[in-house]
Amino acid sequence: MDMQAIVDQVYSELTPRIGEGKVADYIPELAKVPPNQLGIAVATVSGELYVAGDAATPFSIQSISKVFMLTLALGKVGEGIWKRVGREPSGSAFNSIVQLEHESGIPRNPFINAGAIAVADVVLAGHQPKEAIGELLRFIRYVADDETISIDNTVAKSETATGYRNFALANFMRAFGNLDHPVEQVLGVYFHQCALSMTCQQLARAGLYLANRGVNPLTGHSVVSPKRARRINALMLTCGHYDGSGDFAYHVGLPGKSGVGGGIMAIAPGDAAIAVWSPGLNKVGNSALGSAALELIAQKTGWSVFGS
Amino acid sequence: MDMQAIVDQVYSELTPRIGEGKVADYIPELAKVPPNQLGIAVATVSGELYVAGDAATPFSIQSISKVFMLTLALGKVGEGIWKRVGREPSGSAFNSIVQLEHESGIPRNPFINAGAIAVADVVLAGHQPKEAIGELLRFIRYVADDETISIDNTVAKSETATGYRNFALANFMRAFGNLDHPVEQVLGVYFHQCALSMTCQQLARAGLYLANRGVNPLTGHSVVSPKRARRINALMLTCGHYDGSGDFAYHVGLPGKSGVGGGIMAIAPGDAAIAVWSPGLNKVGNSALGSAALELIAQKTGWSVFGS
Amino acid sequence: MDMQAIVDQVYSELTPRIGEGKVADYIPELAKVPPNQLGIAVATVSGELYVAGDAATPFSIQSISKVFMLTLALGKVGEGIWKRVGREPSGSAFNSIVQLEHESGIPRNPFINAGAIAVADVVLAGHQPKEAIGELLRFIRYVADDETISIDNTVAKSETATGYRNFALANFMRAFGNLDHPVEQVLGVYFHQCALSMTCQQLARAGLYLANRGVNPLTGHSVVSPKRARRINALMLTCGHYDGSGDFAYHVGLPGKSGVGGGIMAIAPGDAAIAVWSPGLNKVGNSALGSAALELIAQKTGWSVFGS
Amino acid sequence: MDMQAIVDQVYSELTPRIGEGKVADYIPELAKVPPNQLGIAVATVSGELYVAGDAATPFSIQSISKVFMLTLALGKVGEGIWKRVGREPSGSAFNSIVQLEHESGIPRNPFINAGAIAVADVVLAGHQPKEAIGELLRFIRYVADDETISIDNTVAKSETATGYRNFALANFMRAFGNLDHPVEQVLGVYFHQCALSMTCQQLARAGLYLANRGVNPLTGHSVVSPKRARRINALMLTCGHYDGSGDFAYHVGLPGKSGVGGGIMAIAPGDAAIAVWSPGLNKVGNSALGSAALELIAQKTGWSVFGS
Repeated sequence: MDMQAIVDQVYSELTPRIGEGKVADYIPELAKVPPNQLGIAVATVSGELYVAGDAATPFSIQSISKVFMLTLALGKVGEGIWKRVGREPSGSAFNSIVQLEHESGIPRNPFINAGAIAVADVVLAGHQPKEAIGELLRFIRYVADDETISIDNTVAKSETATGYRNFALANFMRAFGNLDHPVEQVLGVYFHQCALSMTCQQLARAGLYLANRGVNPLTGHSVVSPKRARRINALMLTCGHYDGSGDFAYHVGLPGKSGVGGGIMAIAPGDAAIAVWSPGLNKVGNSALGSAALELIAQKTGWSVFGS
Repeated sequence: MDMQAIVDQVYSELTPRIGEGKVADYIPELAKVPPNQLGIAVATVSGELYVAGDAATPFSIQSISKVFMLTLALGKVGEGIWKRVGREPSGSAFNSIVQLEHESGIPRNPFINAGAIAVADVVLAGHQPKEAIGELLRFIRYVADDETISIDNTVAKSETATGYRNFALANFMRAFGNLDHPVEQVLGVYFHQCALSMTCQQLARAGLYLANRGVNPLTGHSVVSPKRARRINALMLTCGHYDGSGDFAYHVGLPGKSGVGGGIMAIAPGDAAIAVWSPGLNKVGNSALGSAALELIAQKTGWSVFGS
Repeated sequence: MDMQAIVDQVYSELTPRIGEGKVADYIPELAKVPPNQLGIAVATVSGELYVAGDAATPFSIQSISKVFMLTLALGKVGEGIWKRVGREPSGSAFNSIVQLEHESGIPRNPFINAGAIAVADVVLAGHQPKEAIGELLRFIRYVADDETISIDNTVAKSETATGYRNFALANFMRAFGNLDHPVEQVLGVYFHQCALSMTCQQLARAGLYLANRGVNPLTGHSVVSPKRARRINALMLTCGHYDGSGDFAYHVGLPGKSGVGGGIMAIAPGDAAIAVWSPGLNKVGNSALGSAALELIAQKTGWSVFGS
Repeated sequence: MDMQAIVDQVYSELTPRIGEGKVADYIPELAKVPPNQLGIAVATVSGELYVAGDAATPFSIQSISKVFMLTLALGKVGEGIWKRVGREPSGSAFNSIVQLEHESGIPRNPFINAGAIAVADVVLAGHQPKEAIGELLRFIRYVADDETISIDNTVAKSETATGYRNFALANFMRAFGNLDHPVEQVLGVYFHQCALSMTCQQLARAGLYLANRGVNPLTGHSVVSPKRARRINALMLTCGHYDGSGDFAYHVGLPGKSGVGGGIMAIAPGDAAIAVWSPGLNKVGNSALGSAALELIAQKTGWSVFGS
């Protein structure tokens, strides 16, 4: 079966279920997104793009941004980042603070909120939040080869006003000396990265470097080394879906990173980057239909990293 | 470079480091094993076997047996097993009891001790421990195609006499109604499975079904479905090394399962099953040189599931 | 108002509520006790005894026995006991194991189950369980000045058969090296001490030494020093009711120790020892009516240690 | 022995140890306090004041202020306060956040930091921080009958600048809906209450209402009901010294509240209020010499609530 047929079939299989799950409501702006949407985009390393459904509708990528910020931070400080954040699954919710107290303010991995805040602190590197946000925006536009990608400031503002748990996490890390910059600055960056607005098409293209040994095959731009691409994929597989990472690996079998906006970016190493989006979330906070779409795609393509 | 050259090279690169790490001493019998040993065996799906070092020396496979017991239990009760045990990384040590109290006696995954005890309870299925142990032994001989594999009763006895934490875990689960059989019977099975004595060669062959869509390519025996093979691999990748699983995925990039005897079995889906053994353990309880050997092998072969 | 009038009034005030709460059902034998009972006994340091209701009906004193065992253990090893067990409130349930893992197998205090098991280990002191149980029985008969007090072996057997959590706690401590004797022996003592069968009258008299500077005023026997009596009272006040200790201090204001059999022994230093009993338990596992009775008695007598 | 002789004797017994312990250094301003100081003041219900050492030197009362704020809050909302905060010992450090996550943002008791922040929120009651601080200041001057008591704004500022953990706690509670006012306002009150500057003499007098059935015997002012006085005393005994409360009850036997400034206020119901101060802290964060002084005083006076 050719790829477009697969994407179409997955979309039509899931059409009856569109609207499943629960839209995130703890960020007021996200609660307003209409739930009945499903987008799928597959960007292959050979340069093709296959889409279905709402693949051209921009959405808030939220935690998926953590993958790009980690890429940036690794570029800045290399493996030194692991003094500031671990790389083990957390065994707890995305916004848990318990582990921080037990482990001296070092977050378990860069994909839980606390870890991403530490990464944002590393990316700040003495600059103003505005500059760091600008750097991220330039980076994401570069990897996606798309100058139209932007940040939704309404969403960023909404999170700033209500993100008490993130303020708690940041202050807690600061108390342990694991933030170099003022809490407000670090969270300024963090809330803006989460508010990046992208379509499935843009996101699939942006992830291609992780599927292609660190090089975007569309532009030829080298983003990271092959080894680093593998390592980021490994982190996505073990830690990319909070306390649902094991389940995602079990059912989908691809490195991936989800966001509470309902997006998921998944990587089939050597083959493709995939972006799916549907706002309704399952119990562990990942897109219900997005997960289902990826499971079907992995099944039909045989792309699971765990065997065909 | 051909495979034998790779295996030889890895062995010789690591020779100067033989003896690194700390031999497990909480099981008296294991503490007696001479530390200066390193074995490597790679069994490919095409039927070749490549070995180096102490690949023909039997050792206690300990927790690696959890993979085979899970395979057996899935065969008995299918996906129903997930009512008894979760499939998420635990974020804690192999013998932690904290999570059990917080999550009503349901262990996080089948590869931490508590989870493996629940799996042993499933395999017991109303029989006597002797029969269940016999069933496992027949199974392991079948998948390894080797009738000489046996259980080291001295090790089993040693663990029975000192395995207080396992008794604590089992009694705790029993209190929550998550054990169907008496604690002594379940642990009877558990301590004997851990005392399986195998060589790297035997273990590599025994794991081949997981690398080859569920079928042992040497015998043609179908052990599990391709889907189930993928899923067991996924569990090994996310949970196979306790609280060092993230690190192992990051550095090695292969599904694997370690044991405190110093063995590690790793799977390169579509390519090979690998067994390494060296008694000295690193801080998180995995073979120090075994991990290093697998990292080198993955690097030289490009077998990482996260990209070449 | 004279004391008998107070006791009668409290009994009659509570009569309409007899049967409140939930009888402990995790020990099968206890579940059989008829719930509609309430006994009150006040033994004053001046030698009087005031009773009401079912004060002459024997019941299983359960955890109240921990006070007497602690007294025995302090007699054997003095303040050295505090190397084996702490003296801080636990902030968790009576049978929690989480704290043991976080604090290296040292229970928080002698009145949670784990702590009492450590105390039983100290009392064993190299003897057989039978001898330690005999010693406790002699001690309790001595302090209560009553040779008829006995142990209900059916209850002890019932707990032995179902006390999985206590087996878990004991094995866990043994794993940390905080038990000197085999788990079965220590729990043999523990389950028998819990099965002590006493009436409110007997229990009130048995507690008198704690109200009277360490000396039983009825017999003149010196049991402990005044300082030790004060200290045991302090432990009862801060830790005597598991995670309901703060609440009990707030409402009653007397050192006390509850048991899941529905009994509570409370001490009014300088004035009296009080025993109440009613099988129905409140949410934190203390006798619902027993707590209410003590609150009323403390109110009417002005015996609260926190001011009149 | 008369009271002045006791106070003098305690002071002279401890003189050789002056300087013991470690001055709190996480609040920069407190770290500057010279350690070699010890003050003792005993205010009896009969109206006498006995002092020794540095009893007239003002110090930062820090967490001792929590007793007065709780009194104020109980006056405002009565027993309704217990919907916002528990009254059980926490079993953890004064600034732990773990319990908040496990118990839905309800702090365990009003004397750990999180609980005191909730109490400050209650006292705010829709007003500006300035007004709430003014109210507290008026209240403390009233109960101490001393118009010279003031707040050290340098200390308040120092805590505001470095109190990351308190910001974390407050944001965390706010995330759970357990703060009605903005975090900055609540902490504005909290940091100023902690910065109250008082001498031992002032503090002993301020505590007298708790020793005298709710009435200050010097002024005749009724502050709380006898029942409420008892209950506040009960809370101080079970929760007044964080994770050292059990130990304090064991050794001293009086309700008390400590502060990281090195002060402790203790209550001998029916007899006296005692204030001691010495900046060096012991391992659990209570004044080392202050604790020792109170143990000696309790011993020499027989004031322990647990028996003479």
